This record gives sequence, structure tokens and C-alpha cells, in this order.
Amino acid sequence: MATSKPKPAKADAASPSSRVELKERTRLRLIEPALTLIGQGRGYSSLSLREITREAGVVPAAFYRHFRDLDELGLALVEMGGVTLRHLLREARRDGLSPTDMLRTSVLIYKRYVEERSLVFRFLAGERGGGSPVIRQAIRTEESHFASEMAQDLRALGTLPDLSSPALHMICGLVVTTMLNAASDILDLPKGRPKQEQELVDNFVHQFRVVFLGARFWRER
Amino acid sequence: MATSKPKPAKADAASPSSRVELKERTRLRLIEPALTLIGQGRGYSSLSLREITREAGVVPAAFYRHFRDLDELGLALVEMGGVTLRHLLREARRDGLSPTDMLRTSVLIYKRYVEERSLVFRFLAGERGGGSPVIRQAIRTEESHFASEMAQDLRALGTLPDLSSPALHMICGLVVTTMLNAASDILDLPKGRPKQEQELVDNFVHQFRVVFLGARFWRER
Repeated sequence: MATSKPKPAKADAASPSSRVELKERTRLRLIEPALTLIGQGRGYSSLSLREITREAGVVPAAFYRHFRDLDELGLALVEMGGVTLRHLLREARRDGLSPTDMLRTSVLIYKRYVEERSLVFRFLAGERGGGSPVIRQAIRTEESHFASEMAQDLRALGTLPDLSSPALHMICGLVVTTMLNAASDILDLPKGRPKQEQELVDNFVHQFRVVFLGARFWRER
Repeated sequence: MATSKPKPAKADAASPSSRVELKERTRLRLIEPALTLIGQGRGYSSLSLREITREAGVVPAAFYRHFRDLDELGLALVEMGGVTLRHLLREARRDGLSPTDMLRTSVLIYKRYVEERSLVFRFLAGERGGGSPVIRQAIRTEESHFASEMAQDLRALGTLPDLSSPALHMICGLVVTTMLNAASDILDLPKGRPKQEQELVDNFVHQFRVVFLGARFWRER
């Protein structure tokens, strides 16, 4: 089952049946059940290989054709998380941000983004300090890439023109860890409590405002 | 074994053999093996009741005399984490902070503190976004208590006198989440890499400096 022909993806112009792509699709079929289990409230490090293959409907041996161990599957999830984060920046770039209250708009975009991709964010938030050192390190690396891209975007927008590149990266790093922390708070918001939701949003808007205010007055020593 | 007489604690003036204290000690004997397993790189949500009782040398039934389930044991760990955080503030208060480069001194105190209590911080960092909603919420509550105490300390020191109490709490909240994020980075520092350690410390000092700089220029809207 693990190597049966996958359905061709919609709007995929490249040859869909190439060997590499086939392999990619089967990998995905193992990644998805892991995310499903995480969505059921399970921490990644509590998952067993047997559960994942059972959920995927493949025999355990099929797992090893794609991943050396659970850490390697975790790394594939981290990679997916990294792509998700980069898409967020691309969306923000494409849509532009309203110059009035740009921070609030960004927080609201991010909130919706997290809610729509709850499983990936649950995974990132959970494993950033989770049980596997390899996965923790990989998430940190993705955070750093994300901070670099954000710094480049801010440069391109002409925001904070007086900051050196290392200072800008340091500040974006702070923004990124605050964002990822917020992801778990956003996902844990009880439904139908608009007041609580509003307070959470306000709190993050204020925190980001403090960071960017500090950035504006930052001087290299 | 779970209810056998515990050794009297050193420097404990209160009657050590009271029923409540006895119960407390046995609870501790279940909490400690959980921390030991976390120290071996296991996420809390991956632990089973049987493993914990085996490590504690008690029968599984003894567990239920103290905790309803694993979440309740987790809550006891969160409580312990909260106490650990409050001791940190007390230490900082007692020792005072050198007025030159107060932020750097604070970061170095915190780093040592995390390294000396690595298991509790591993637990807090891991479960803040981890598998159990009850434990996540409890950690958030401890964070909020810690932020409140920090805000009171800053008030008492006359730091940021122009900030309203809600603004001060919001800023301390940002400091606390940044600190807890840093805990996992500190614990993952490879040994014998002073350069990398230095960079990590510098990065956090700079991030806190940005936050307090922003706080200084914060105006209510």
C-alpha cells in the first residue's frame, strides 16, 4: 500500500509520476497520520512507529523505506513547518499591510494563519522544547531562517533603516519566538469567548509594539 | 513502600511526622522519578504511569493514592516549577543586581539557575506547548504569577515609573516567555563551546535590552 500509485495532484504541471515524486507522496502519507495524532492532543514524542503506520494503513516495514526512525519523520514535519512559515511571509508580502496599525493587522493575519494550520503549529510549539534534541535543533534552525527572511523583508520595506543587519536579525528572532509562543496560546483559546480572544490579540499587539519601539531607539554599543 | 516512613528533612523545624507531611513526601517520591525520566530526554506526555511507579519502586496502586492521573502529577510538577521561578526572584532580590549592566547580570544569574535546575526547566519548556491542555494552562498561569511578581519587584525598585500596571504586566509577560524559551536553548548548549555560549548570552541580553528600551518609550494610547 505504501508504494501504490498516488492520485495526481491538482494544478501540478511537472510530471507527477516521477520516481522522486512518488516517494514524496508516500512520505506524505506517513506524515499526515502523525499530524492527525498530534491534532488529537498527543505530543509528538509520545507517538510510536506502530501507531503511525496503523493510522496510515501501511505495514511498519514500509515506514523504514522512507524514514530511518521517528526523529527523521519529525524532521520532515519541521521542514513542513518551515515551509508554512515562509508562506506566511509570502502572503504578507503579496497582500501588503495596511500602514495604519500594521502590527495589529499582522497579528490578526498570523492568528488566522495559525488557526487554519493548527496541526503544524501545534507540532512546532510542542516540540520546540520537546523530547527530541534533533527536532528541537531543527526547529531552532527554521526559526533562524524565518527571522532572516523577516529581516530581509523589513529591509526591503525600509523599516528601521538605522539598524545593523545583526541587530535586525536579533530583533526578528525575538519576534519569531514570541510568535511561536503565541501559537499555542491562540490554539488554546476557548471557543465563543470573544472578550478573551480580544485580550490575547491586544496583548500580542502591545508586546510587538514594545519590541519595535525598542528597535527604533536601539543604538549599537 | 509508598507509605513507609520518609527520612526527616534537614533543617526542618516543623513536626516532620505529621500525616500531611508524610503524604507530601510520598508524593515527592513519585514526582522525582518523573523528573529523572524527563532528564533522560523523555517528554512528559510520553511517560506512562507504570514507568513512573517502576522508577519510584512502588506498586501502580500507590500512585492513585496520591494522584488521580498523570495530568495531576504533571500539575504537581508545574507547581514545583512555579516555586522554582519565585525563588529565582527572591534570590535576585536578596543579592541585589549590579547597577552597571543589570540586564547582563540578570541573564547570567538566570542561566546558572536554569543549569542547576535543568529538569524542572526542561519540563516547563517542554510542556508549555506540550500534549496536555491542563498542564499547558497551568504553566501559563504560573507564567502570569511570575510576571506579576516581577512587575511588583520592578515597581519597588522604581524601574519604569511612568508605566501603568497593566502595561508593566504586559512587558513582564514578554520577558517571562522570552526567558522560558531561552531555558531550552541554554540547556541545549553543547559543552565546551564558550564562543557559542557567549553568543547565546549576548543575544538574550540584547533582546531584553530592546524590550526595556521599548518599555521606556511606551506611551498608553
